[in-house]
Amino acid sequence: MYDLVILGGGPGGLRAAELAAAAGLKTVLVEKDRLGGVCLNRGCIPTKALYAHIVGGKGPREGLWSRVEGIMDKLRQGSATALRMAGAKVVRGTAMVVQWEGEKKISVRKEDGSGEEITGARLLLATGARSVRPAFAGNDLPEVLTGDWAITDPSLWDPERNGEVRTVAVLGAGVIAMEMAMMLQDLGKQVLLLKHSDQILRRLDGDIKKKTVQILKKRGTLMRDYVRLRETSPSGGKLILRGTSKDEPFEETCDRLILASSMEPVLDGFGLENSPVKTVKGAIAVDSSQRTSVEGVYAVGDCTGGAMLAHLAEYHALAAVSSMTGGNYTVDYDAVPACVFMNPEVGTVGLTEEEALARGGEIVSAKAYFAANGMALSLGESDGFVKVVARASDKTLLGVHIMGPEAASVLGEAALAVSRKLTAGDVARSVHAHPTLCECFRDACLRVLEKEK
Amino acid sequence: MYDLVILGGGPGGLRAAELAAAAGLKTVLVEKDRLGGVCLNRGCIPTKALYAHIVGGKGPREGLWSRVEGIMDKLRQGSATALRMAGAKVVRGTAMVVQWEGEKKISVRKEDGSGEEITGARLLLATGARSVRPAFAGNDLPEVLTGDWAITDPSLWDPERNGEVRTVAVLGAGVIAMEMAMMLQDLGKQVLLLKHSDQILRRLDGDIKKKTVQILKKRGTLMRDYVRLRETSPSGGKLILRGTSKDEPFEETCDRLILASSMEPVLDGFGLENSPVKTVKGAIAVDSSQRTSVEGVYAVGDCTGGAMLAHLAEYHALAAVSSMTGGNYTVDYDAVPACVFMNPEVGTVGLTEEEALARGGEIVSAKAYFAANGMALSLGESDGFVKVVARASDKTLLGVHIMGPEAASVLGEAALAVSRKLTAGDVARSVHAHPTLCECFRDACLRVLEKEK
Repeated sequence: MYDLVILGGGPGGLRAAELAAAAGLKTVLVEKDRLGGVCLNRGCIPTKALYAHIVGGKGPREGLWSRVEGIMDKLRQGSATALRMAGAKVVRGTAMVVQWEGEKKISVRKEDGSGEEITGARLLLATGARSVRPAFAGNDLPEVLTGDWAITDPSLWDPERNGEVRTVAVLGAGVIAMEMAMMLQDLGKQVLLLKHSDQILRRLDGDIKKKTVQILKKRGTLMRDYVRLRETSPSGGKLILRGTSKDEPFEETCDRLILASSMEPVLDGFGLENSPVKTVKGAIAVDSSQRTSVEGVYAVGDCTGGAMLAHLAEYHALAAVSSMTGGNYTVDYDAVPACVFMNPEVGTVGLTEEEALARGGEIVSAKAYFAANGMALSLGESDGFVKVVARASDKTLLGVHIMGPEAASVLGEAALAVSRKLTAGDVARSVHAHPTLCECFRDACLRVLEKEK
Repeated sequence: MYDLVILGGGPGGLRAAELAAAAGLKTVLVEKDRLGGVCLNRGCIPTKALYAHIVGGKGPREGLWSRVEGIMDKLRQGSATALRMAGAKVVRGTAMVVQWEGEKKISVRKEDGSGEEITGARLLLATGARSVRPAFAGNDLPEVLTGDWAITDPSLWDPERNGEVRTVAVLGAGVIAMEMAMMLQDLGKQVLLLKHSDQILRRLDGDIKKKTVQILKKRGTLMRDYVRLRETSPSGGKLILRGTSKDEPFEETCDRLILASSMEPVLDGFGLENSPVKTVKGAIAVDSSQRTSVEGVYAVGDCTGGAMLAHLAEYHALAAVSSMTGGNYTVDYDAVPACVFMNPEVGTVGLTEEEALARGGEIVSAKAYFAANGMALSLGESDGFVKVVARASDKTLLGVHIMGPEAASVLGEAALAVSRKLTAGDVARSVHAHPTLCECFRDACLRVLEKEK
């Protein structure tokens, strides 16, 4: 019998397996597909590998697609090695939980058709999420791609094979929709953004949203608000989209349609329906230690709903394994960073100004601009800003919102500062190297301090 | 009478003027050249602007030189605006201090030949540094450039005008020497590194030094150790260098020679020789509040010796103005970050492993490699590592040494962590976004924690 059986080898399951095995728990991870989950195989990693070339200009055009596949291979091998070194076992196959309470029993159908019964003292669910495919006629046509698979389509992304695609419609206006829309534009494609409301990047700070809309308009993005798609039909190698926008009927033509409106937890296919594990709003309900309603059953990552982020899944795993091994780590949801790999790049952590205001209490906010930053000017990428939201009384940092060059790297310092509940003064008094992009974060903190007077 | 008279408009003087004026002190800054000092006009900024293109591939080859000049203009204007907005006055001219004790009297000869007498309750010296020009025959030939001016020479750096230069000799092996050597190589020039010892980047961590030597060798850098130059003479449009290396005579031919061995404080030209202000080893002696031996006279930046870094000068300024206005800020020299803009980039903060060992006490160190980092792989820049040096007992971070992509930005988080005396666990438990380069710092912290067991 194992101490821990993990279902799903995405970022959450992998990290849980590594941590648990390293902590001495006899651990097995069951994965039906390739290690790495959506993130590594159809999400973050191929997206960033393409982004580095398309937006960042890294590497030659030739052989881009095979480079991207090489990166994924390397990271999958790295994950497998990390598990092996930690002492966790991997079983390839489809798992069905046949006993949830007391000793956990999992029946695995392996790739070769054989079966294996696995038993464990604990079970950790890391089954991930998938794109929602909204109901409309023709939603399963080959030119209709879901956001969790679209990045694997060379006819969209491979500069050596995507010549025929000219216009791409993107349904949604969240992170995946924005990243794909801007990369497609940088590839010279016309983008038609079909938004469910008049909002974009709903969870982000207002100043970043505003700037993003300006950029989209400047780049000639066609946008429709309050869209309901009714049908999609093929016509002469193209797709005709019909629906309503603000209750007015519309018709558009495109070469591809990407369904990037939202993701939903994967709750089927492993016996959850017949289990006593509680779900809430289509996600597995967990406490701050990632415990479900059933003793010894944990869940981490996208299948628990909320912000579906690879790194959040990893820290869920840390919380779960910590709880199994007598620790008390819990994720601080007010310090979870997130990036949007668009152009310019976005990095954000903590509360937006709107969220901070909604919680009550006096706040101050200030922005510093990359246009005054020597490194940003040197890079020729001085568009953007760092916005800091702080508590008015003691200038404790509540949120930092970055839009500009290397935002994902600059975010490192900001996320640590918010996580450690540091003040604007703590950051401003720490020596920042010159010339670096991080000086822009320091300068925003200085402006917050100036507001004191 | 002014509350504060500042000599020198480099990073230290500028920041002091801005802070002092903002704090309500009536402030004047005297600068004989352009605002911004070596850093902005002949150092960090033009270097990084060239680096962004030459090493980072940013922007087109055409018009590079005028883009670089445009960046400097913009930053100079920014400095002037910042001073004006803070309420500090700028006087262009050469200052001579004629009374050091009690009320300070400064005689200024302006650009137009007229004179002005300025008096102040306090005086702040921010006179900077210049390259040392070692004594050898022909050290003033036009093909011999000093490190503090070499970056302004289009015949070296402007890709549209540097075709005739094929071989460049660089005397020295410090930061300036390394940055120039690697950029010249990326421009296709043969580099001959003339080192005063067998060391390079003396103050840096041993693992970074070792890797840098490997890179230099791989790139075909010609290197001579323990060099003493005796003479330089022109010959058919080239320079012949003669001297000894490890006491053996040598002769080399090159097109340019850059003297980048070291910088020395500027202590002449403003009356210091006839003052009671104490100097030690060719630098102005100051306490932790940047006070010199004379009441009311402060000094900041390169003229006080030590590590000559623009950002250190800025934080000196913060300490000085803090002391003038009743505060108690002092620079923590164990948390001063520094960057080397070579290929790969280097960012470092705090103690090297060697320094930490020399101070006694048990330490642990660990490295994580960018080869396992999804973002570094995506960028196609996975060469390098993050090395963490921590106290063994409680894993407090003592130093972080980064070599790899966007190291200067990744350094932001590391510098804050070292400055705030955080532990490896503090960093590891803070949520890091995926996929980002900062995960490599987090992973190095995780490895430090694993060493506990």
